[in-house]
Amino acid sequence: MKPFSPETSSRLTFQTGVRQTLLDITEPVADKIRRRGFQQGVVHLFVKHTTCVLTIIENADPDVVQDLLRRLETLVPRHDHEDRHQEGNSSAHLKSSLLGSSLLVPVQNGKLVLGTWQGLFLAEFDGPRTRTIELTFLPCS
Amino acid sequence: MKPFSPETSSRLTFQTGVRQTLLDITEPVADKIRRRGFQQGVVHLFVKHTTCVLTIIENADPDVVQDLLRRLETLVPRHDHEDRHQEGNSSAHLKSSLLGSSLLVPVQNGKLVLGTWQGLFLAEFDGPRTRTIELTFLPCS
Amino acid sequence: MKPFSPETSSRLTFQTGVRQTLLDITEPVADKIRRRGFQQGVVHLFVKHTTCVLTIIENADPDVVQDLLRRLETLVPRHDHEDRHQEGNSSAHLKSSLLGSSLLVPVQNGKLVLGTWQGLFLAEFDGPRTRTIELTFLPCS
Repeated sequence: MKPFSPETSSRLTFQTGVRQTLLDITEPVADKIRRRGFQQGVVHLFVKHTTCVLTIIENADPDVVQDLLRRLETLVPRHDHEDRHQEGNSSAHLKSSLLGSSLLVPVQNGKLVLGTWQGLFLAEFDGPRTRTIELTFLPCS
Repeated sequence: MKPFSPETSSRLTFQTGVRQTLLDITEPVADKIRRRGFQQGVVHLFVKHTTCVLTIIENADPDVVQDLLRRLETLVPRHDHEDRHQEGNSSAHLKSSLLGSSLLVPVQNGKLVLGTWQGLFLAEFDGPRTRTIELTFLPCS
Repeated sequence: MKPFSPETSSRLTFQTGVRQTLLDITEPVADKIRRRGFQQGVVHLFVKHTTCVLTIIENADPDVVQDLLRRLETLVPRHDHEDRHQEGNSSAHLKSSLLGSSLLVPVQNGKLVLGTWQGLFLAEFDGPRTRTIELTFLPCS
């Protein structure tokens, strides 16, 4: 069995600095697409971690990011005396399950197809951590 | 670089009439698949907007749609005095992040593979708006 | 039109035993990939049901699963006197919409690309039920 060649795979690694954060990863993803010369299809982004997600939100006003993290914390508070998981990060697991570990974004003419206000974000809910995103390029028919 | 030909791309546009709504888009999507002659794989649907999502819910009883919008509003209320984003639509951004901007649905023999009660819906949380869905057709191996 | 051959499609069926449950389906999915000989790309998993989802969570500590189900129930309680849908499962519909009916997981060298702590789960919110997952194999470029 031929080993998977590095050219057909692609990875991005990020370091988060605080417990909860949202990082705009649009530009590094766009750069990977350019370097690879991928033209038409969709790019699949996937995080291999259970307290971290990929999501698309407005990237114009940083207040949106802050409101989102604060409202999420209200919805799924860190501490819950009924939690049984000893690591104390069950809230991070639920947030991750709600937001999801994958993104799939169209690529046309070598560029991400995103709306004016859309940005790709990695959210970490139990940092600081080193997080890796696996990119897979899927051609369209 | 050859420009992306219109035949390999596909778009659907919808007009929403009120602030929050769920539109059944199953039939227009099925029609696009038929017109394109796409047979086997998955169709990727993507919205290029940050207050609007794509989701799959029951399409048999309109009460499900109403319950879902009302319960979502309870979960993520429109007004929150701690919100910093000036446009007043942080709740719409969070709802969008929770439900997601993509759908991926299998296609077999030219037809959407959906359960009896499943329908594809566009949800808008900060309308009325004109919303566009980008369709990409991914062949299976 | 040639009917879709069974070899190009793939299905997994599970029986759930209680009203709400999370089943680890990682091994059966990995087995389908092996049997098919699919090497590089992504596998798409899709449930054709409206009260059931696919999600990725930690599979190491069963307490995480219990915390997640309990916290989700707090967030979206079963009974709400304002619900109009007569079947009494509007909460299951909202949970499903929040968590999503699809998963897309990278495959490299014939193996699922998952983090050490990640497992693929089917969650049912209105069981017991018999649930089917449709698998589609998407090659990468």
